Amino acid sequence: MIRRNPALAALAAGYLFPEIARRRRAFQEGHPDARIISLGVGNTTEPLTPHVTRRLVEAAERLGTRAGYTGYGDEQGLAELRAKIADVLYGGLVAPDEVFVSDGSKCDIGRLQLMFGGGIPVAVQDPAYPVYVDGSVIAGAASRAGADGRYGGITYLPCVAENGFMPDLAALPRDGLVYFCSPNNPTGAVATKAWLAGLVKEAQAKGCIIIFDAAYSEYIRDPALPRSIFEVEGARTCAIEVNSFSKSVGFTGVRLGWTVVPRELAWEGGSPVAADWNRIMTTIFNGASNLAQQGGLAALEPEGRREGAALVAHYMGNADLIAKGLAAQGIASCGGDNAPYLWAAFPGRSSWEVFEEILERCHVVTTPGSGFGPCGEGFVRFSAFGRREDVVEAVGRLVRLGG
Amino acid sequence: MIRRNPALAALAAGYLFPEIARRRRAFQEGHPDARIISLGVGNTTEPLTPHVTRRLVEAAERLGTRAGYTGYGDEQGLAELRAKIADVLYGGLVAPDEVFVSDGSKCDIGRLQLMFGGGIPVAVQDPAYPVYVDGSVIAGAASRAGADGRYGGITYLPCVAENGFMPDLAALPRDGLVYFCSPNNPTGAVATKAWLAGLVKEAQAKGCIIIFDAAYSEYIRDPALPRSIFEVEGARTCAIEVNSFSKSVGFTGVRLGWTVVPRELAWEGGSPVAADWNRIMTTIFNGASNLAQQGGLAALEPEGRREGAALVAHYMGNADLIAKGLAAQGIASCGGDNAPYLWAAFPGRSSWEVFEEILERCHVVTTPGSGFGPCGEGFVRFSAFGRREDVVEAVGRLVRLGG
Repeated sequence: MIRRNPALAALAAGYLFPEIARRRRAFQEGHPDARIISLGVGNTTEPLTPHVTRRLVEAAERLGTRAGYTGYGDEQGLAELRAKIADVLYGGLVAPDEVFVSDGSKCDIGRLQLMFGGGIPVAVQDPAYPVYVDGSVIAGAASRAGADGRYGGITYLPCVAENGFMPDLAALPRDGLVYFCSPNNPTGAVATKAWLAGLVKEAQAKGCIIIFDAAYSEYIRDPALPRSIFEVEGARTCAIEVNSFSKSVGFTGVRLGWTVVPRELAWEGGSPVAADWNRIMTTIFNGASNLAQQGGLAALEPEGRREGAALVAHYMGNADLIAKGLAAQGIASCGGDNAPYLWAAFPGRSSWEVFEEILERCHVVTTPGSGFGPCGEGFVRFSAFGRREDVVEAVGRLVRLGG
Repeated sequence: MIRRNPALAALAAGYLFPEIARRRRAFQEGHPDARIISLGVGNTTEPLTPHVTRRLVEAAERLGTRAGYTGYGDEQGLAELRAKIADVLYGGLVAPDEVFVSDGSKCDIGRLQLMFGGGIPVAVQDPAYPVYVDGSVIAGAASRAGADGRYGGITYLPCVAENGFMPDLAALPRDGLVYFCSPNNPTGAVATKAWLAGLVKEAQAKGCIIIFDAAYSEYIRDPALPRSIFEVEGARTCAIEVNSFSKSVGFTGVRLGWTVVPRELAWEGGSPVAADWNRIMTTIFNGASNLAQQGGLAALEPEGRREGAALVAHYMGNADLIAKGLAAQGIASCGGDNAPYLWAAFPGRSSWEVFEEILERCHVVTTPGSGFGPCGEGFVRFSAFGRREDVVEAVGRLVRLGG
């Protein structure tokens, strides 16, 4: 028999979100009349916008014609889409051939982890989006977690109220891979340009590569805050950026994202990282759906951009309602001003216990903070993704927590 | 600086198909008036069929409505699609929850390689679809290739005219991973049920797991030939099957595939492989596009199945034309009867040299056999994917090879 990959054997329990879904189902079965509202998973709920929908419909129609049919495209994505991302979203800070289009940033993170392999130190914000840690374990970059829930070989960078949810950069490992997410999932904290400049400087000094997750960049309302790490000088020699159309135009189900690998980024010895990334993408990936890519093109046209901004404004309106609702119950929270997540503090309590209490009393699904890392203990995450009437209803039910 | 992943450093040259595209572009630049026809990459050329197109259009329209919008779906795919694949394509030989829907089998093979990791022996047919070897090298399962072009740690199973392009099963490694593709890419050879039974028996005896690539199963015209390895008794304890909608309904660009992991399949020690596959799919994958999945559902309805059969018949008509054209030039070939590929023999010659000669004389792109492995030397692959008028034209030009 084949031996189980020891990296998989090191991986603890199940992935966070399926576990939440399981608990939700269990509660629903026990309470068939409860109308559960989810402010848990960051899942978009609003329909695709008209301009983007029209383009998807046309793209599907065209695939049914001899003149319009296309088979395999370039694994790196349509040249037109790569150019439009570089232009519209980066204002030319990155070149079209540095943009690699994909089926989403979660999937790209998995492929990046495969590219980096198991032999290097990894650092993550704590708390963080679970894929950074779980995927690193799968790639062999970590050893089994100890009693404290922390995997060996991974440096956890505490992000807590005391440091404004921005990690201590002195703790970065040498020659390692550093995951950094801003606007942050789950805390909602957003790095300033000065702070990112410090991160870039420290990464350069330590020989680190940053994987900058900008999936929520469109949720930044404050124009002074950076939407891309490439707004910071020096980032091109030490950073990869992943991003997605999921949260900006509701493509969570349609599947479209991208990764920027600057051509200056090099391994020890000088060979370009982008060449290896291109090899990974051409060898074990086969391009994002041609339908999704047409939708992405429409989303980057002026009309698509206007619609996308309105969509984001809707979700940010939800965030404002949740922030007020939490405050009304005396629950301290941060985030939600330039990010679709609110990080609510329940000091001294277990996250899963709070999760269960909110589910039982309010019939509202949240995400337990400890699912994002040990420093998430005592917090739950509220997601602003939801229909307005559901959010209003859910926020109204929070009063039951006071009882 | 971060050390380059040694597995990537072990990987030779570029992925095959981009190299072919590069040579084609170079020839076109030198001969701007040449009308090059590709019988190279197995890329579909016929429009999507009406029933499937209609469903894709409707699915796109629905995403633009409040009632029809969907965000993230289950990472494993729509329950309805998993059930339909199990029922329509496997006649219940596999269960719906053993079917994992994805964005294509090339991508699934990459994720399978990540799951298996670098610590196990790998065996491949020689020649074979390049992703089996290249992806194994990326996953760390092989060491740098020697002067003969063979990577260390990989067992190459020669598939040559003398053995009817079916490998010697005695050469399977112990406790290893065995890739097997039938109908075969590139040779067009198809395993009989008796032959597959022998493979399963040998895999069981040696403790191997087979990755059975059935991407061309719909091209089997002979009803006696097996379309799935699960038609063979015992396969459920030793095989994983990958397949795709790319070649059966022209979804090369739309992106939709699936992998079957039977629940009986276990690691040494007894833990189920399916649990790890589920963990991989939920952690570093986020579901196939919801649009593509709706198209897949339509393709499995009776009308979609009829349309798909006609599409396959079109490409197989091309295969018949290519077979006749090669025979008329006295070029021996096999395949093309139950597979969309013909494997043409040019004994004693270099594949790349033949590739260049056909490109220069006929302005036809083929695929050099050596790109699929050392035993592919002296062959080129002709793909039956193409428009009828192009295939007729390309076949007519083959006469120039006689000159």
